Amino acid sequence: MKSKSILHILFMLAQLPAFQLAIAEDGYRLWLRYDKIRNSALLHEYRSRISTIYIAGISPTLTAANRELTAGLEGLMAKKIIDTKNNFNASLVAATKSAAGNMVKTSGIDYSLLGTEGFAIITMRDGKTSKIFISANTDIGVLYGVFHFLRLLQTESDISNLSINSVPKIKHRILNHWDNLNRTVERGYAGISLWNWHTLPTYIDQRYIDYARANASIGINGTVLTNVNANALVLTEPYLLKVAALANIFRPYGIKVFLTARFSAPIESGNLQTADPNDTSVQQWWKQRVQEIYKLIPDFGGFLVKANSEGQPGPQNYNRSHADGANMLADAVKPFGGIVMWRAFVYSNEVPEDRVKQAYAEFKPLDGSFRKNVLLQVKSGPLDFQPREPIHPLFGAMPATPLMMEFQLTQEYLGQATNLVYEASLFKECLDADTYAKGKGSQVSKIIDGSLDKQQLSGIAGVANIGNERNWTAHPFAQANWYAFGKLAWDHSLQPSDIAKEWIQQTFTNDPGFVSATLKLMLSSREAVVNYMTPLGLHHIMATSHHYGPGPWIDNAGRADWNPVYYHKADSNGIGFDRTATGSDALTQYAPGARRALENAEANDEIYLLWFHHLPWTYTTKSGRSLWEELCARYNQGVDTVIAMQTTWATLSGKIDEERYNQVKMLLNIQHDEAIWWRDACLAYFSSVSGRPIPANYQQPAHPLEYYKKLQFRFAPGIGGNP
Amino acid sequence: MKSKSILHILFMLAQLPAFQLAIAEDGYRLWLRYDKIRNSALLHEYRSRISTIYIAGISPTLTAANRELTAGLEGLMAKKIIDTKNNFNASLVAATKSAAGNMVKTSGIDYSLLGTEGFAIITMRDGKTSKIFISANTDIGVLYGVFHFLRLLQTESDISNLSINSVPKIKHRILNHWDNLNRTVERGYAGISLWNWHTLPTYIDQRYIDYARANASIGINGTVLTNVNANALVLTEPYLLKVAALANIFRPYGIKVFLTARFSAPIESGNLQTADPNDTSVQQWWKQRVQEIYKLIPDFGGFLVKANSEGQPGPQNYNRSHADGANMLADAVKPFGGIVMWRAFVYSNEVPEDRVKQAYAEFKPLDGSFRKNVLLQVKSGPLDFQPREPIHPLFGAMPATPLMMEFQLTQEYLGQATNLVYEASLFKECLDADTYAKGKGSQVSKIIDGSLDKQQLSGIAGVANIGNERNWTAHPFAQANWYAFGKLAWDHSLQPSDIAKEWIQQTFTNDPGFVSATLKLMLSSREAVVNYMTPLGLHHIMATSHHYGPGPWIDNAGRADWNPVYYHKADSNGIGFDRTATGSDALTQYAPGARRALENAEANDEIYLLWFHHLPWTYTTKSGRSLWEELCARYNQGVDTVIAMQTTWATLSGKIDEERYNQVKMLLNIQHDEAIWWRDACLAYFSSVSGRPIPANYQQPAHPLEYYKKLQFRFAPGIGGNP
Repeated sequence: MKSKSILHILFMLAQLPAFQLAIAEDGYRLWLRYDKIRNSALLHEYRSRISTIYIAGISPTLTAANRELTAGLEGLMAKKIIDTKNNFNASLVAATKSAAGNMVKTSGIDYSLLGTEGFAIITMRDGKTSKIFISANTDIGVLYGVFHFLRLLQTESDISNLSINSVPKIKHRILNHWDNLNRTVERGYAGISLWNWHTLPTYIDQRYIDYARANASIGINGTVLTNVNANALVLTEPYLLKVAALANIFRPYGIKVFLTARFSAPIESGNLQTADPNDTSVQQWWKQRVQEIYKLIPDFGGFLVKANSEGQPGPQNYNRSHADGANMLADAVKPFGGIVMWRAFVYSNEVPEDRVKQAYAEFKPLDGSFRKNVLLQVKSGPLDFQPREPIHPLFGAMPATPLMMEFQLTQEYLGQATNLVYEASLFKECLDADTYAKGKGSQVSKIIDGSLDKQQLSGIAGVANIGNERNWTAHPFAQANWYAFGKLAWDHSLQPSDIAKEWIQQTFTNDPGFVSATLKLMLSSREAVVNYMTPLGLHHIMATSHHYGPGPWIDNAGRADWNPVYYHKADSNGIGFDRTATGSDALTQYAPGARRALENAEANDEIYLLWFHHLPWTYTTKSGRSLWEELCARYNQGVDTVIAMQTTWATLSGKIDEERYNQVKMLLNIQHDEAIWWRDACLAYFSSVSGRPIPANYQQPAHPLEYYKKLQFRFAPGIGGNP
Repeated sequence: MKSKSILHILFMLAQLPAFQLAIAEDGYRLWLRYDKIRNSALLHEYRSRISTIYIAGISPTLTAANRELTAGLEGLMAKKIIDTKNNFNASLVAATKSAAGNMVKTSGIDYSLLGTEGFAIITMRDGKTSKIFISANTDIGVLYGVFHFLRLLQTESDISNLSINSVPKIKHRILNHWDNLNRTVERGYAGISLWNWHTLPTYIDQRYIDYARANASIGINGTVLTNVNANALVLTEPYLLKVAALANIFRPYGIKVFLTARFSAPIESGNLQTADPNDTSVQQWWKQRVQEIYKLIPDFGGFLVKANSEGQPGPQNYNRSHADGANMLADAVKPFGGIVMWRAFVYSNEVPEDRVKQAYAEFKPLDGSFRKNVLLQVKSGPLDFQPREPIHPLFGAMPATPLMMEFQLTQEYLGQATNLVYEASLFKECLDADTYAKGKGSQVSKIIDGSLDKQQLSGIAGVANIGNERNWTAHPFAQANWYAFGKLAWDHSLQPSDIAKEWIQQTFTNDPGFVSATLKLMLSSREAVVNYMTPLGLHHIMATSHHYGPGPWIDNAGRADWNPVYYHKADSNGIGFDRTATGSDALTQYAPGARRALENAEANDEIYLLWFHHLPWTYTTKSGRSLWEELCARYNQGVDTVIAMQTTWATLSGKIDEERYNQVKMLLNIQHDEAIWWRDACLAYFSSVSGRPIPANYQQPAHPLEYYKKLQFRFAPGIGGNP
């Protein structure tokens, strides 16, 4: 294991005098920097409290915990930590219940509350001395507790009287990598895939270990290694050996590996004539494949499947239902404890129905017909990861089926890797939304965590924004979306502002001025991107295919429902998609309470106005402005927020390392240019369609509409292909 | 400029106590590590000699020199260096002739010998004190001198009595990046392209700066940013703005940017009907394009062109000659001082002639018909970057044309990024080869540096092995090939062993045991790869397309001359390509002296035996063994050398950082597996063709021949495509 060496370097750096701390940082260390505490009073207190540690028990997970704890404490406190090896009198003890001896009783921890992954951290007193006790029912719980404790120090928290119980609310907390076997990443904006299939299984990149550390530090416990647009080759032995090597690296960190299953694999890889899920030879093929997998990877997590969607094969090719397909795979992995995550992201050009209604129409009738080890993975909104969508109507509509949430961390429609957008605001908005499925208080979060319908299985997935860039995510602030996803997956009751704050403290500095200014900037960022891209409920007006930049004029995409004009329906009279009873009536898919809230045009600052309503340009909005004027105002507000972000950032020069300061500054310059481009192109277009001039008090577009229409970005990133 | 911050970190690390130096290193720093000198006596001496510096003059290049010198000295000596700003009494003075005042005379430097890039470094005495003086005619000469001086310290050299004059022998020392606009790299094995076209020109990656530093440190003064399989899009304004941003970064480091010119660009990008070089509208289009380029990049270097080769368009599409095409472009760039590098790598399937003869046949008649600012860029050998080839017959055959050397640093046919192969041995073998063009002593190096034929222009190119992997080249030892190329480009009289030694010292450690063992390992590595892939003059028996692994049995490639069987011609009677008078007579393209040397089957340890001769399996080789037995012996010798490399490396554990030690160890394991694979697959195949068993004293192939033939590597890296 080389992680120790890496951590050593951090420790060394942490010991440098304070005036030299403004050194270059390339972002590789993420939020696990462990630099020396700069608050000297607090440093003194920490040092006086912790000198010796004892981690009871022996296992790869506990070894990882020991290394992380030692390196972390030595870095943060800039002093040598003694591992007592076998002494419960150490100033910090970490142990599972079964290894904790007397401390089980003396600590007073109620282990029955901690489950298989939760942990407790308490300050125990014995006369004048005190000690820290980190405990759990399992080794992985101990590791999670260690990371949590280190976070307390990193954020300069009071540890004099700890009494923490932390248990994840959701069982499967999973990253989805849309990584192809040729290392391109579909919708990836941070270089190429981390997984170097060519040099696996022999060559173990240090990144694999650090990826596992980062995920474990925020409680992520699963990873789907391959793209949902899947390649059957990964299910063959040469690739499974490579997958097994990654699984071996991830295992001590509590992370299970999953793969995407290409539905037609029995044909492509198994030489069968069919992939019909009701065909016994097909079922047998999958069972044998699964046996092979579990022989190599005994704790293999299971499959994620995109079927009959955007050209992917699926059970409907054989006139079988999605349940038939999912259940066949579920039967294959069941003996080994595996699960199947079946995606609900389906829509068809041949169906004349409003695209946002199709998944509900397809899946709701299947409620109750899935095996117990199947989760239905539903995107946050009914369309496709827009800057803002109403919640997906399937949430609450399938009480007999565990629904998994699919968030997208990679910012396909949110400025990709050049825009600073803190997505926790979006995630939280979705998790907090009330489906009214069982009356008021039926929030999406309660469906996802299984509490509303008493589901045994629960899960949440984030489409990863990670690549082989030196700082993992290209934009330094995109690391926050990875971080926030993990934290919300563990505990969806957390507030975006609290998550952002601790992320800033760990990633940059505890300097209060920096933290508060950056926090404000982050919290304003999601509304900014909504405003400069798709205000007032507009959606999917991005350019075709790469989705980079505006394309509201596009009407010639391969399918009607890939065209921006399909979504905004702007003409000389008005704009918006009528999804009320006079239109597609997509609203009918929501429970009455939710429907009322969504249908109300004025609700929520009119954020869903044009998602549900087609309105005349002269429609009077809440502000008193006409719809046209309000649209102009919102686009300009988006740009203004970006300018404010730039202004804020400029005040922070010198408070952090020069390298990341400059990176963010340059990226904000790009974001500023792109926000103006979005505003100008969209307003130029809508102005031409509506025949209404942009009010003179606003900046007029820098170019005529034709200029924007002609812009082409043949090599915009993230296309990826699917080899 | 953020490089200072990065360097600061190195400085800090260098100050750590020695016992903590075995820390993780990710390889990003290359050979510019500047860690604290570990020889304490020497450290003391350096410290006593150097405390203050003065770099006279103001320019971006001198600022870069000052930063590098300060950070380097502070790191190496672990002490603060004072910049006197304006005092020739500093203990180290760096100045151009025009800024050096009295020191021009007192130093005794003969500036007339230094040219526009050379430098002098001398120790000057004044009574009891001495000072270091680094001088040159130009700012860039000063920067080169600073890098050279830092290298002396990094290699723990005696600086008490320096008297160094160093002048490059070749004018254009250029990296060729086969990088596509979508960031794939053709024949790239170290991640994707450094050039993030999408975020340029606004976002300046720290890597761009460090790339320039690394190149300047070894004297590379030009870079072709784009693939020879070119895309005309890079010649359009949006891309030129991005190219200009890179040029601005590279300029202070003396590096000019070049682009590849797609010959059909006037059609694709200019909407012309033709790209005929004799068409005035085509000529005009290129002139305007070139004017645009120079408006944005006043010191643009010029074009590299691959034309009428492997599907690329060219002048022959219009029945014009290569000279017509090159001259048209040369006329366009001439007013601005640009050059054209025209590649001689042409061959055609339609021509029934032996492929290795075709470039000579095509270009020799054109000698003397190129413009003065055209260089003909010729690959080292007549085929295609094989582990070993005889020299290209064009060297020496075109006395009226300046010929540029094209080496390939990326190891397309030499184990790609998983095999440790030190290529300086190959480069040197080629540079030292005697063409006999003007009688004995007409070495290739004298043709390349222009001395043999009194050429004004001279150049050397290396196809880069650099990508966005954290350590730039994927294999830590592949950095040595970049380094050695730069050093040989500057001075081809250097010995591979000397270059390797100083590279090891800078990159890893000055520990004599480590240096000598690693040096031996490196120097054995090129002959190893020849032996386990293509011994005795075999060539091009790699698998099709990706060239990963053996494929001697392949006979169904798209073109006859892409098939391994075309090259080895093995059958039951014998093996080898008859290129004597009884065969293709490729030998006739060499001057008589060279021909005699190459034709002699026994010469040079029979290294070219099967390149020039088809021989019976029973042919008696110099060793006394039959040809078949000798082939078996050489393949096994290749594997044995890799095993020896592993054994050597195992003894070096603990002498360097754990991270890179383990990386190399894992990669040697892969190399070992691949060497055995090569040996077993090739001997199994040749055994089946010859009907001769592999002698029982050798390890028999682990699998039957069919196993090797069935292996497929659909996602082997480096294909790249050409979008």
